[in-house]
Amino acid sequence: MSMVQHGGDLAAAEARWGRPARGWLDLSTGINPVPYPIPAIDTAAWHRLPQHDRLRRLLEAARSCYAARADAPTVAAPGTQILIQLLPRLRPGARVAILGPTYGEHAACWSAEGATVTTVRSIEEAAAAEVVVLVNPNNPDGRIVRSGRLTALADDLAARGGLLVVDEAFAEVTPGVSIAAEAGRPGLLILRSFGKFFGLAGIRLGFAIGAATEVERLARWLGPWAVPGPAIETGIAALADQGWQEAARTRLATDARRLTELLTAGGFADRGGTDLFRLVEHPQATIIRDRLGHAGILVRRFMHQPTWLRFGLPAGEDGFARLAAALG
Amino acid sequence: MSMVQHGGDLAAAEARWGRPARGWLDLSTGINPVPYPIPAIDTAAWHRLPQHDRLRRLLEAARSCYAARADAPTVAAPGTQILIQLLPRLRPGARVAILGPTYGEHAACWSAEGATVTTVRSIEEAAAAEVVVLVNPNNPDGRIVRSGRLTALADDLAARGGLLVVDEAFAEVTPGVSIAAEAGRPGLLILRSFGKFFGLAGIRLGFAIGAATEVERLARWLGPWAVPGPAIETGIAALADQGWQEAARTRLATDARRLTELLTAGGFADRGGTDLFRLVEHPQATIIRDRLGHAGILVRRFMHQPTWLRFGLPAGEDGFARLAAALG
Repeated sequence: MSMVQHGGDLAAAEARWGRPARGWLDLSTGINPVPYPIPAIDTAAWHRLPQHDRLRRLLEAARSCYAARADAPTVAAPGTQILIQLLPRLRPGARVAILGPTYGEHAACWSAEGATVTTVRSIEEAAAAEVVVLVNPNNPDGRIVRSGRLTALADDLAARGGLLVVDEAFAEVTPGVSIAAEAGRPGLLILRSFGKFFGLAGIRLGFAIGAATEVERLARWLGPWAVPGPAIETGIAALADQGWQEAARTRLATDARRLTELLTAGGFADRGGTDLFRLVEHPQATIIRDRLGHAGILVRRFMHQPTWLRFGLPAGEDGFARLAAALG
Repeated sequence: MSMVQHGGDLAAAEARWGRPARGWLDLSTGINPVPYPIPAIDTAAWHRLPQHDRLRRLLEAARSCYAARADAPTVAAPGTQILIQLLPRLRPGARVAILGPTYGEHAACWSAEGATVTTVRSIEEAAAAEVVVLVNPNNPDGRIVRSGRLTALADDLAARGGLLVVDEAFAEVTPGVSIAAEAGRPGLLILRSFGKFFGLAGIRLGFAIGAATEVERLARWLGPWAVPGPAIETGIAALADQGWQEAARTRLATDARRLTELLTAGGFADRGGTDLFRLVEHPQATIIRDRLGHAGILVRRFMHQPTWLRFGLPAGEDGFARLAAALG
């Protein structure tokens, strides 16, 4: 079991606050609360081993959706997490700089494999590192590093045998931030998560797109049938559905604004985020989180930043009304 | 992409023989052709991150189904293959003896990670090895090693810091062969595959049950959400459904006998197998395989044993009739 704190564990929340009569309003993750409708999946996708031609189709759909080149080396995995677990094997024992604070699994996984991990506050501080890891836009504060700086950094690292890892887990809501179009140049590896924007975190689907050597090694370590058939079929449908994606982006932007207004009206200071979650600060954050927990609303706290809370988007009027009532 | 030969790749078969008008009769794998009916899965299992309490329930169901002790250390993975990929990291650079010929991924994965791999024909030949790997019952010939010999071997290896890996991918059809009841003793690691017996290879679900240290390391490498929510829910239902399992075992035994009779009547010599597949030999195996391919029937050949073919079970009367016609 991971030692990193995560959102989304309802059994743990129930052990603490009891089971809410109205069910949980889980705002502790950055998962789109309105999932892509699960397509009709042929029973063959459940019965047979995942088929190579369908996997190829999935990779094409991913490259197209992420605006990567059609020949950009790409590997699919059962969730981005397992890619994060494998990354340290690409540069064993490396000096790793992680732009933080950010998603905790990056530091935890590199450290567990014997890397020397430093958390830096800016790219300039990462000059001595062999590997630089950043989440773009960042989780939880939404910080964005411009693509020009990233490609320059990747080239610099590549010249020294290093690697830049850009985790674009939340980039669907700000497509302009992505550097997937640069995937293929040496020294650059981009991670994409399917489950957050498409609201289907349970199917476990993620991608690494980037330098050929690194992508090939990840693919070899994952083996021939790493992605389940139903995830392949769902991914093919969702990644190609531009209409749904556009509508989702618009709705998420509207709801994120509305959430920010609700929270700032409730006395929180906005500290950034993306259209899939908002980071806010309040001197009484610990007390508020507990009050929300008793009201069946789960939010994300930060052990080392006790005045921060992160709120995912409530689903629809009911969710917003319930949150407003609990905050009021 | 793996360099090991596998069955079940229909696109590759179509590239060779064209698309059969009646669709493929895929007998190239050992997957039960009558899958466990996919249960109604709550959309939350697709939407949310996989929940720890449901994963615990899955592990309980697996231990119970496999007759392991309730406290036997167990980890679930998205398919057994990814566990096979990780095993070499448990004993880096080890001298590994694999009881062969057997499923090719074991040797391939240990070799790829720098182990010294020897294929042995008997356990006695494995005396100098630090790690012994065997498939029980074996794929493709069904060879069975008695549990008393396996526990003695595990104890012997454990005393030297070694490891016995018993891949029970096909043990559901011969539950008496399994040593899952011994799981927990040092030096023993058992792999179980969900997809073959339950006919749901596409969902990707496998287990490692055994020595605490090794199971904990595998779990750490897989990370917190390795198994998709829909696979967890399907596994919980299927592993607990003893009625379906009994009926499936009976039907598979009947169909395996029928398949053997059909093949021996067609001039093949029976070379063993399990109730999920039969291994047969014929001097003209290469020609027969090609004839079957043209008839839309896919079987498994063996590069180094050109007179062998492995047949999975046809589904129902149609499947048997079609195979009989193509053989006749």
